[in-house]
Amino acid sequence: MDCGLPVGVFDSGVGGLTVAKEIMSRLPGERILYYGDTARVPYGSKSKETVTEYSRQITKFLISQGVKVVVVACNTASALAVDTMRKEFDLPIIDVVEPGARTAAGVTRNGSIGVIGTEGTIRSGMYNKHIYNISPELNVFGKACPLFVPLVEEGWIYDSVTREVARRYLGEFRGKDVDSLVLGCTHYPLLSNLIRDVVQEVLGGGVTLVNPAVETAKCLKQLLTERGELNSSPEVPEHRFYVSDGAEKFRSFANSILPCNVIETKNVAIKTFE
Amino acid sequence: MDCGLPVGVFDSGVGGLTVAKEIMSRLPGERILYYGDTARVPYGSKSKETVTEYSRQITKFLISQGVKVVVVACNTASALAVDTMRKEFDLPIIDVVEPGARTAAGVTRNGSIGVIGTEGTIRSGMYNKHIYNISPELNVFGKACPLFVPLVEEGWIYDSVTREVARRYLGEFRGKDVDSLVLGCTHYPLLSNLIRDVVQEVLGGGVTLVNPAVETAKCLKQLLTERGELNSSPEVPEHRFYVSDGAEKFRSFANSILPCNVIETKNVAIKTFE
Repeated sequence: MDCGLPVGVFDSGVGGLTVAKEIMSRLPGERILYYGDTARVPYGSKSKETVTEYSRQITKFLISQGVKVVVVACNTASALAVDTMRKEFDLPIIDVVEPGARTAAGVTRNGSIGVIGTEGTIRSGMYNKHIYNISPELNVFGKACPLFVPLVEEGWIYDSVTREVARRYLGEFRGKDVDSLVLGCTHYPLLSNLIRDVVQEVLGGGVTLVNPAVETAKCLKQLLTERGELNSSPEVPEHRFYVSDGAEKFRSFANSILPCNVIETKNVAIKTFE
Repeated sequence: MDCGLPVGVFDSGVGGLTVAKEIMSRLPGERILYYGDTARVPYGSKSKETVTEYSRQITKFLISQGVKVVVVACNTASALAVDTMRKEFDLPIIDVVEPGARTAAGVTRNGSIGVIGTEGTIRSGMYNKHIYNISPELNVFGKACPLFVPLVEEGWIYDSVTREVARRYLGEFRGKDVDSLVLGCTHYPLLSNLIRDVVQEVLGGGVTLVNPAVETAKCLKQLLTERGELNSSPEVPEHRFYVSDGAEKFRSFANSILPCNVIETKNVAIKTFE
């Protein structure tokens, strides 16, 4: 395998850019080929079958572009589709749930872990499953927060309405004594300052926020190193961004959160990859 | 044409059920065949090309089921796709924007009309276009309210957070002296009590809310009567409901708002209708 090949990263929309950002920061030689499925966003409320089909189409597109690895930068797709994808595709597939679960299990001191995510992620119980696999002694409490994604997309990042919504969602962890909270949706790190404040307010101090994106980037680095595929070229890589709808809106959002300048974003009709 | 054939109704999800409800109430003999595109909901943030493609696929599905007319029970699809659809299909197509615009133009006394809807609907300017066609003297002010759909889907129908969001969105009409407000998204009538209260609070009394669903049902009745296709059978019609994802969740929502018992909802893979 040529280590100069790009790393494929996908999400239902812009959320996965928080994972792309960590990869850019920790693996500065890697070229990223990102796909955001903006024509069918969000995945969080959709079924396992639908999310698996969409993930399969996108993976076929990424493979057609010659990626060396696929990073599923979406918790819902990680929770619902990755098991099936690993059976169907030969190349390595990295998800965000397993690294997130491992980090949470590592940081908890009292063994009580909270997970917030989309309906699909929470209903799947995949964080619980991975955390119990690490240690059956740990307690995991999940809470779906379906309004966080549209609030981020509305741009109400540090806002009184978002704060009130967060109070209500996070208030559900009261009395559960959680000391770590997994941001189990790639949009949520964009709200991390607000979530940190509200956690402090409703649950008190001492709760560690876990961003699976950081651990996912580390996981990717380890995998590429083991396979001898890490790109250590000093050249600044040219990342590419593809979406299924609204290329310009995506580009402007990407430029607001990535450390590089996103010059162009292309529309790709994903349904042809079946 | 056989007047016993069903009326096709579609929306991106559950919102169009508010239109189906008005049709059931005003045309009690008609059998409804409803399609909710729940695998690709919402349409409001998507492009004209994407919404047109999705609407085309669903219309082909409805035609394959033998409907006599298609009601586009989605403001975004009405605003973005209906012109193209009317060119491509032979059967009559009724949208919600034109009847809504006509009602608003009829109820305003001072000539100043507000329209709330999704990003796609507001950006399209279709309400403005239809209202100006009726009378160029009328003033139309649009405001996109992208959080209302997810708030309805979260079930926060009469809620302090939703009220605060409504205050912020509707506050944008301050000083514009609107005396009528079009609920330009089929989800919004589900929030009409809350919207009425907030309008009273932030804009004062005397603002009439316009629900395009009512006028759309009247429009359908007139069309079917003119074509001799109105079903006046005294039999209680058996409606059918199809979705692209999450049939059970849809059924439970439909049962909470429709006057009939929705026994079954079927999944149909819509992408095959291309």
